[in-house]
Order: sequence, then structure tokens, then C-alpha cells
Amino acid sequence: MNSKKNAFYAQSGGVTAVINASACGVVETAAKSKKINKVLCGENGILGALNENLIDTSKESKTTIAKLKNTPGGAFGSCRFKLQDPVKQKKEYERLFEVFAAHDIGYFFYNGGGDSQDTTYKISQMAKKLKFPLQCIGIPKTVDNDLPFTDCSPGFGSVAKYVATSTLEAGLDVKSMAETSTKVFILEVMGRHTGWIAASSCLAAAKAGDPPHIILLPEVPFEKGEFISQVKQTVKKNGYCVIVASEGTQTKNGKFLADSGSTDAFGHKQLGGVAPVLASMISKIGLKNHWAVADYLQRSARHIASKTDLDQAYAVGKHAVKLAISGETAVMPVIKRISNAPYKWKIETAPLKNIANVEKTMPKKFISKNGFEITSSGKRYLSPLIVGEAPCFYKNGIPDVASLKKYSVKKKLKSF
Amino acid sequence: MNSKKNAFYAQSGGVTAVINASACGVVETAAKSKKINKVLCGENGILGALNENLIDTSKESKTTIAKLKNTPGGAFGSCRFKLQDPVKQKKEYERLFEVFAAHDIGYFFYNGGGDSQDTTYKISQMAKKLKFPLQCIGIPKTVDNDLPFTDCSPGFGSVAKYVATSTLEAGLDVKSMAETSTKVFILEVMGRHTGWIAASSCLAAAKAGDPPHIILLPEVPFEKGEFISQVKQTVKKNGYCVIVASEGTQTKNGKFLADSGSTDAFGHKQLGGVAPVLASMISKIGLKNHWAVADYLQRSARHIASKTDLDQAYAVGKHAVKLAISGETAVMPVIKRISNAPYKWKIETAPLKNIANVEKTMPKKFISKNGFEITSSGKRYLSPLIVGEAPCFYKNGIPDVASLKKYSVKKKLKSF
Repeated sequence: MNSKKNAFYAQSGGVTAVINASACGVVETAAKSKKINKVLCGENGILGALNENLIDTSKESKTTIAKLKNTPGGAFGSCRFKLQDPVKQKKEYERLFEVFAAHDIGYFFYNGGGDSQDTTYKISQMAKKLKFPLQCIGIPKTVDNDLPFTDCSPGFGSVAKYVATSTLEAGLDVKSMAETSTKVFILEVMGRHTGWIAASSCLAAAKAGDPPHIILLPEVPFEKGEFISQVKQTVKKNGYCVIVASEGTQTKNGKFLADSGSTDAFGHKQLGGVAPVLASMISKIGLKNHWAVADYLQRSARHIASKTDLDQAYAVGKHAVKLAISGETAVMPVIKRISNAPYKWKIETAPLKNIANVEKTMPKKFISKNGFEITSSGKRYLSPLIVGEAPCFYKNGIPDVASLKKYSVKKKLKSF
Repeated sequence: MNSKKNAFYAQSGGVTAVINASACGVVETAAKSKKINKVLCGENGILGALNENLIDTSKESKTTIAKLKNTPGGAFGSCRFKLQDPVKQKKEYERLFEVFAAHDIGYFFYNGGGDSQDTTYKISQMAKKLKFPLQCIGIPKTVDNDLPFTDCSPGFGSVAKYVATSTLEAGLDVKSMAETSTKVFILEVMGRHTGWIAASSCLAAAKAGDPPHIILLPEVPFEKGEFISQVKQTVKKNGYCVIVASEGTQTKNGKFLADSGSTDAFGHKQLGGVAPVLASMISKIGLKNHWAVADYLQRSARHIASKTDLDQAYAVGKHAVKLAISGETAVMPVIKRISNAPYKWKIETAPLKNIANVEKTMPKKFISKNGFEITSSGKRYLSPLIVGEAPCFYKNGIPDVASLKKYSVKKKLKSF
């Protein structure tokens, strides 16, 4: 008789450049454990459990599993899907436990952001109530860096490195052209509610006057007059101006600039894009400008991942398994910063109980008085997160990513 | 008495991730030559010569010069500036020769695209007429890959690698989210008149069904109906659709999609952006979509430069010096492909005489019948250009770029 139980692992919410490194940490650590039989992954997140679409990772080669560290996106498919409230509507939760029972699942790992970890918590509570033996462990992930309890969120450091590097590189481009051409460059980055990603562009500057010259954060109400005046001043002083804007840049009454009513030729409301809105303001004052919108490029850029971030993503996956087999539940491994210089960190454990109600915004002390820059304490926090390179492997000039065979586990239940 | 002459080098037009590697090739090769004294660089291209703003590279350390290979943008400043026609207006040309005489310039190197090389040619003809001993050598550069005489243009391979890599990475992101979220992703890339850059995204696909699914080229008239139908079909078949669009995508009557009359909230005409225009079409058919505009990020991305491209950029710089000291003038080193597999190339020499009148567009045989894909012969051409990695050095997590001291040469003339 086998006393081992299977583990369920799934990815949830917006994916990152390193979420598969967490998956790799889970699968590789579970393979060494005497308590875990197979790791079965949910296809497209929790939907995989609901629909009994499970992928058997034990049939993938060790090389393929190791290559997950080299692969952006969610290798097993992710989802934006919120389970119904178990108090009002139990059906979905009941189904989950049917599937867990049918596939001998004793461990539940959910790799996601705040909402997903709230789900993990609810499942742990349901297991308790049902007396179903299930260790439920959250694995943190989000490029937004807004998860509570952890010093940083796996996925963020790599976006930060992408944004800092891109700002530095595009800044050199604009600087060399500014005498006779483009004077202002705008880079739009992610961050609807928090400015962590835009803030990380500050790491591109080695000395005063280096780009970025203006950072726009959702935390700081946008004032057109002040912004334009800052652009003019910067161009006058440096000959050019590089702006990094959060997609969530908003006015003091909470109106997103990107939703400022732009219409296309057909009179349709334009989709997002704070960069083109800023560009049109700058064109009005006669400054030639260019703009870029990084969108998914930033969060999938495994080729420029931060080694620190990759290591942390792997570590939380590995540690999640250790917590589960030591009998913990309703917890999440988190990153604890021990020191800034040299940067040292370790893994600690946080309860999932209150995770849904806490969002980590940028501390005020990280934002300069004029609202356009990041202070030295902000830089001290951000700086170590982008350190270290984790070059991916290439084949024919492009990243050599994991190609999973995705062996489906045979279904045992009726469809949901 | 010193029989050595100084060399003038300048950068022109839109910069690239590897134009400074050409500069490095010029400076390092000149340093070994018995015929060249110093390399004096024009600050901001030819403007540096007109305004007698010259940078003495002999005062930079060898380490700094070597680091140019690690540095995107134009390290000496570039310009978009067209000299007046020497037949109609000689003033500018006369000034150039005054400056060359004052600074003992015997070699002229101009690193740029077609227009810049036309300038190089005109200067060579003027030198001949004036019996001014000046070897004029063009050094090819353009991300657009539209230069004639050369198999490819230094700068293009690195953009191609960036675009292929970004398409692969963002494609994995979208694929993993498509079940419950974004179904269509649009990446807008450079290329106003030719689709070389968009075409290079085809290298992201390892097998049928891989992104990119639709490539929009300026060479193929945009038909909204066909496009939308292709998007629908692709989503139906693969569950998601990745589109790579040239900024110069246009209708059959030559109207750029990006100039389709979009207006912002203030009623101002929006600046460019074919991606948001396509996004609004796709939203109309009810498919959730996201879009990115790579803009300067793509042409300054030294961190993901192609080793092949970097080597070629260095080689044309080095070879330009060899041509000059061997007495050649009005020529440009070009890349000649010897074989595809294994990829072999060498440097040959092309005359500058007709360069202004020739533009290399994509051959029809590179474009699939439906106009949305690249054929296997196109892939054979593009494939070797992105091969090889040339990782840059990093410091504190960001690229460690050359920081030139830029010693100004003392002016000897009145200002122009």
C-alpha cells in the first residue's frame, strides 16, 4: 500500500517571466519527497481541477522540467477565474474535493497573487470542515509587487530589470538623437494601482541627469500643468527627457489618463494607452516625441530575468513543498530581507488568512517631494531585486523553452 | 614631420544597438595603422564637422573604447540633418573642407543609412574637385535593412533577434492566459516602408501554430475584412492569435493605418500607433486583446543583440579603415553571404555612387500568398542573422555601458 499522496499544482492570474521556475521548484522538490507521489498540474489554473483536466508531470523528462526555469508564461496554462463564495454557493468547492478525492490529492499548491491566495485559504478551510486531509500552500507570484507579508513578489524583480534596462537603452538612443530629432520619449509600463514597476526604472540612472527624468505613478495625482512644466525644464537642462509612466497614471479624482476618452477614426473609444495621451500633450508644446508601450513584453521577458528573482521564484516553490510535507496548511512561503548591502534574504512563512484584504502600495517615503522621482530609500529597496543575470539558453537565436508533452491524467468523474 | 593624417568619424540617422561596435572597429583599427594619427569624432554626426565640435578618441582609455561594443545608441551623438545640394549651395561643403583642413583630416568615415552614404559620396566628389586628399568611406547601418549592395544592414540582425524573442515570449504569455483572458496580442514594430523587421518575427515559430500567426507588412495592402477573418480563424484554431504589425501597415491607396485620424479626448490628432487601431478593430468583434509598441526599445536593445550582427557591425568599421588606408574612396564595405547552412559571410566593397537611388524592399518570394506569413525562403534568409548571443556586461543589474569622457578638440576656426 502506498502511503504517498499526489500533489495538485496550478498557476493563476497574470503570468510572469519566472512563474515556471516556481513550478520547477515544486516538481523537483516533490520528486525527492517520500510523502508525495506525483505532481498533477491543473490545466489553466483552478479550471483544471474543476474540469478534471490534469497534467501528469511525472511523465515529463527531468530535462524538460529543468527547462521550465528557462520558460516565461504559464507552462500549464493560467486563468483569470474567481471561484464563487463557498458560503453562498458550495457547488464549485464540492467539485474540487470530488476531483481531489478521485485523484488521491493530499497537497494543494496554488501559484498566484492575492485573490488566488484567498482561494487557497478558502479551500484550506473547506478541507478542515470536511475533514479532508489536504495541505494547502500558497506560492506567491505577481509582477505588481503588491502582495503583503513578503518583502517582494516573485516576478517583480525580472520586470524591474527589464524596465530599468529598457529605460537605460532607450535613454541612450534618445540622447544621441535629441540635437536634431526626438526630444521626449515615453515608456508606458504596467501597474494599474501601484507604481512599483514604473518606480523600478529609477535604477537605470547611474548619475544625476540620467534617464528616467520623470516617473508617473498611480500614487501621485497627475497634474497636467506641473507635468508639462517638468518636461520643458528637463529638455532645457538636459536636451532631452525620458518619461516612464504607469498605465494607472490618474488624476486626483481617480480618472485614468488612459481612459481619457480617446476615439479612433471610426469614433470608437480607444483601448488604454497612457503613453499616446501624454505624447499628444507633449506634441502640443512643440516637442518631437516617441512612445513605447511594453505591455506583455515586460512581464514575459525571461531573456532579461533577474537572477535574484529567478532564485526567489524557485525557492518559494521548493519551500512550499517543504511546508506541505511538514504538515503546514493555509500558509505561504514569503521572502524576508535580512540586509540590503550585501543583499541577503531568506524564506519565512506567512498565514493566508488575511491576504485578500491587504495590498502593499508604495511607501510615501519612496516618492520624491515633486512626485516625479524615487528617493534614495526607494532605490535601496529596489536595487538588489534586479541584481544578477540568468541568461536563458538559446537555439537558432531564440530562447530554447520547455516543450511539455502534457500527458493528461485519465478522467474518473463525469464532466462538471 | 608626421605623415600621418587624422580621421573623421561620425554617426548619422537613427541609431542602433550595435552602431557603436562599428565605431569601436574604426577606432581600434585606426590605432594600429601607421597612416592614421587620431580619430576625431563629429559630435552629433556631420553637425560636429560643420560646427567644429570634434571629440578626440585618442584620449579615451582602451577599456572605454572596447566598451562601445556593449553600448547601444550613438555614443558620439547622431543627427537627422541633410546637407544642402552642393550644386545649388556650396557653403556647407566649403565649411566641411575648412574644418578638415584645419584638423588635418585625411580620412572621412560616415556611419549611416542610404541618405548618409549619398552625403559621403558627394563629399568624395567635392574632395576630388578640390584636389583635397580625403579618403571617403561609408559604413553601413540601419535597422530597416533597406540598404542596397549589402546582404543585410548592420543593426538589423539585433532588432530581428529582439522582435523574434519578444514575439516568442509574449506568445507564451498570451497562450497561457487565453482560456479565460486575452485572446489576441498585437506587437507593433518599426518599418515605415519595408517589412523586414515585422517579417523577422517569423523566426519565433518553431512549429506550425506557433506565434506569430499574422504578420502585417507595408508591402501588402491592408484589407480589414481579410484581416479580421484571419484573426477569427486563428483564434478558433489555436485559441489565441499573435499579430506582429509594421508601423507602416497601409491600405492599398497608401494610407497608413497609424494615421487613420485617431483623436484624443481633447480632439487632437493622435500620434502614430498602428497597434491601437488594430486593437479597436478586434475589440469590435468581441475578442479581448492587448497591444505593445516596441518603438525605440527594439532598436536600442543591446542586451539581446545578435552576435552575428555585432560581429558584422564591428567588421564593417574595421574594414572601412582598411579601405581608407589602402587608398580607396567613395566606397562602402558590405556584407556578402557565402552560404546559408552553415552561414558564412565575408566583407566586400560596393561603390557609393548610386546608393541614394536604390532601396532594398522585401522580395515577393519571401511573402506568403495570403500576405500574412513569411515563406521558407524568407526564413532561410532571415534565420542566420539572429544567431548567436552577445551578452553585455552588467553592473548593479543594469548594462555597464561606455561612459566616454568626450575630450573636445580645441577649435581653430570661427563659428559657422
